[in-house]
Amino acid sequence: MFSRDVARYIEKRDGGIPSNPDNIYLATGASDAIVTMLKMLVCGEGRDRTGVMISIPQYPLYSAALADLAAVQISYYLDEDKCWSLDVAELKRAVDAARQHCNPRVLCIINPGNPTGQVQSRQCIEDVIRFAKDERLFLMADEVYQDNVYAEGCKFHSFKRVLFEMGPEYSTAVEMASFHSTSKCYMGECGFRGGYMEVINMDPEVKAQLTKLVSVRLCPPVPGQALLDLVVNPPQPDEPSYHQFTKERATVLATLAEKARLTEQIFNTVPGITCNPVQGAMYTFPRIALPQKAIDKATEEGLSPDMLYCMRLLEEEGICLVPGSGFGQREGTFHFRMTILPPTEKLKIVLQKIREFHVRFTQEFS
Amino acid sequence: MFSRDVARYIEKRDGGIPSNPDNIYLATGASDAIVTMLKMLVCGEGRDRTGVMISIPQYPLYSAALADLAAVQISYYLDEDKCWSLDVAELKRAVDAARQHCNPRVLCIINPGNPTGQVQSRQCIEDVIRFAKDERLFLMADEVYQDNVYAEGCKFHSFKRVLFEMGPEYSTAVEMASFHSTSKCYMGECGFRGGYMEVINMDPEVKAQLTKLVSVRLCPPVPGQALLDLVVNPPQPDEPSYHQFTKERATVLATLAEKARLTEQIFNTVPGITCNPVQGAMYTFPRIALPQKAIDKATEEGLSPDMLYCMRLLEEEGICLVPGSGFGQREGTFHFRMTILPPTEKLKIVLQKIREFHVRFTQEFS
Repeated sequence: MFSRDVARYIEKRDGGIPSNPDNIYLATGASDAIVTMLKMLVCGEGRDRTGVMISIPQYPLYSAALADLAAVQISYYLDEDKCWSLDVAELKRAVDAARQHCNPRVLCIINPGNPTGQVQSRQCIEDVIRFAKDERLFLMADEVYQDNVYAEGCKFHSFKRVLFEMGPEYSTAVEMASFHSTSKCYMGECGFRGGYMEVINMDPEVKAQLTKLVSVRLCPPVPGQALLDLVVNPPQPDEPSYHQFTKERATVLATLAEKARLTEQIFNTVPGITCNPVQGAMYTFPRIALPQKAIDKATEEGLSPDMLYCMRLLEEEGICLVPGSGFGQREGTFHFRMTILPPTEKLKIVLQKIREFHVRFTQEFS
Repeated sequence: MFSRDVARYIEKRDGGIPSNPDNIYLATGASDAIVTMLKMLVCGEGRDRTGVMISIPQYPLYSAALADLAAVQISYYLDEDKCWSLDVAELKRAVDAARQHCNPRVLCIINPGNPTGQVQSRQCIEDVIRFAKDERLFLMADEVYQDNVYAEGCKFHSFKRVLFEMGPEYSTAVEMASFHSTSKCYMGECGFRGGYMEVINMDPEVKAQLTKLVSVRLCPPVPGQALLDLVVNPPQPDEPSYHQFTKERATVLATLAEKARLTEQIFNTVPGITCNPVQGAMYTFPRIALPQKAIDKATEEGLSPDMLYCMRLLEEEGICLVPGSGFGQREGTFHFRMTILPPTEKLKIVLQKIREFHVRFTQEFS
C-alpha cells in the first residue's frame, strides 16, 4: 500500500511513465538503500573483483562503502572548468583503465551533485545511459536533491524518465536503481531516516535476492516511513493545508536559491577563491589557492593542506568547513565544502569571515 | 552528554559499577549494534575464519548476519529438558569441535532468551564468563529483555555486573559488549529503532576502528535517540509523572507475567505439546509431537514439518506462529514460537484455537 503511494509519486514526477510498487524498497534513508544495493552488486576476487565507478569529488558514503565491501573504486573526474559537468570521454577513460585490473559493473551518479552542486543536462544523462548500456554497467542514480535546483536554465531530469524516453532499446535493457530521501529538498528531515529506492530492469533472480536481503532485516524506522508517506502525498489543491504548504515550499526553495547565488558571488570576489555556480543541491565546493609555504607547513604537520586551512578557520572563526580532500579532488588542487543552509543574514556574515580569513591565511604564508 | 545518561543508567542498574560514556555507542536498535560488532570481529580465511558461537534455538538475526559476513556459525544447544538452560559442557563440546575447522573468537548469549524465554542463573553466567576467559572469546551479551523477567525465583543478572563482581582477574580480562534496545521490556517501542551497546575491555586499537566504523555512518534516527534518552531517564519520585509511570510499568509487567503463566499452563494441557515455563522475554517455544504421516506429507511438499503445521494453522485459524525450524532445533524435534503479547482475553482464545487445531491436525495425520 505504502509502496503504491511511492510509485504513484514517481509516476507523477516522470510524466506518467509507469512505476511498479514491486520495484520500490523502503529504507533507513537513502544511505542505507545505497549500501544495500552496493552489497548486492559487489562480488568476485582478484581481477574479477567488482569495480564501482564514482565521481571525484564524491560524497564519502561511496568510498567508505566500497572500502568496507572490498570493492574496487573506479574514480572518474568531474570537470571543474565546466561547472563540474560530467564528460562521457572521462567515464570511458576511467572504465578502460579499470578493466585492466577489475570487473567494472556499477556506475554511480549523484545528480544534482554532492558536494559540487551541479545539475546534469538532459543530453548528458542520455550520454551516460548510452555509456552504461554499451559497457553493461548497473546504473545507480543518487537523486536525493531532485527538488533542489536553483540556476536559470537548469532542470532536474530523472534518469528513469530519460531512460524510458530513449525508447525500448534502452528502457528494457539498462538495469538501474534510483534513490530518494526525506532528508533533503524542501523537507530537510534528515533525523528521521526515511528513504526508498526504485529498481528498474533488475534480473528477477537478483531481485529475489535483494528482497530476501532486505527482508531479513527489521523494517526502517516507523516515523521515517510515516514522513516519507507525507513527502509522496503532499497536500492537494482541495485540501485545507495546500495553500500554506505551497507557500512554505516556495519560500524555502526561493531562499535556498538566493543563498546559492549569494555564496557564488561573494566567494568569487575573493582573490584565490574560485567558485562554480551552485546549480542545485545544498553545497558549494570552491577551489582555494594555497601558498606553497602553507602546503609545506601542512606536510610538516602530517595534514592535507586543505585540512590545515579548515582547522585554522575553525580555530580562528569558529566556522566548520569540510576539506576537499575528504571528497577527493584532482592532485594539486584544494577545495572545501560548505553548505548554503545557514539563514541568509548569518550566511552573509559567515562568507565575510571566510573572506577575511582567506586573505589573512594567504598573507601569513606568503 | 547523551552517552553519559546511558552510562548513568547502567551504573544504577549494576549497583554502582562504573560505566564509561566513551564505551557507549548508540545504534539504530540493538540489531544494528549487534551486526556492527560482528562485522568488527569477523575476519580471516579458510581454517582461520572467525567462528561465532550462537545458541540453538537462536534469534535468526544472528544466523543471517553470520551468513552475510561469511563467518562460521558454531551452534551450541540449549537444554530443553532443563528449561532451555545453558550448559558449559555443551559450550566446550561445541568450541572444541569448531577448532578443527575455524578460529572461534566470539560467544553470543541471549539472556533472557529469545525464542526460548529462559533466564540465566547467576551461577550459569559466572560459568560462561570463566569459559569465555579460558577460551579467549569475545562475549556478546544480548540483554534486550533485561526488564522482562516473570518467574518466581528468577532475576536478571547483567553479564557486566557479574563480570565485575568476579574480581579483577575477570573484570580486566574478558572483552565483552552488552546490547540494549527501546523495543522490548515495558517500553515496546520497536518502531523507533533506538538502541545502544556498551563495550568493556576492548583493545584500544580495535575500539578506535569501531569508533571509525560507526562514525562513517549517519547517526541513528533522532526520534529513536530521544526515546532511548527517556528510557534511561525514567520519571523520578519528585516528578509529576512518576506515580503514573510506575503504575503503568507495574501493570504492563504484571500482565505479561500473567500471560506467561497462562500460556505455559494451557499448552501443557494439550496432548502432544510440551511447554517450558516462560521465565522471561516475550516468547514461548513449545515442542510439538508431529505424527509420522504429517512429517511424510511435509517432506513430499518440500516443507519442514513445523512449517506445514504453522501454514495449516494460519490457513485454518488465521493465527500466525513461526516454525521452530526458523530458529534452529535439535534434529527430529519440532517447535513453534509464539509471542505472549496479545491482550489476555484474546490470548486465551488464541491458545484455545491452537489447542483445537493441534488435536485436529494430530487426528488427521494419525
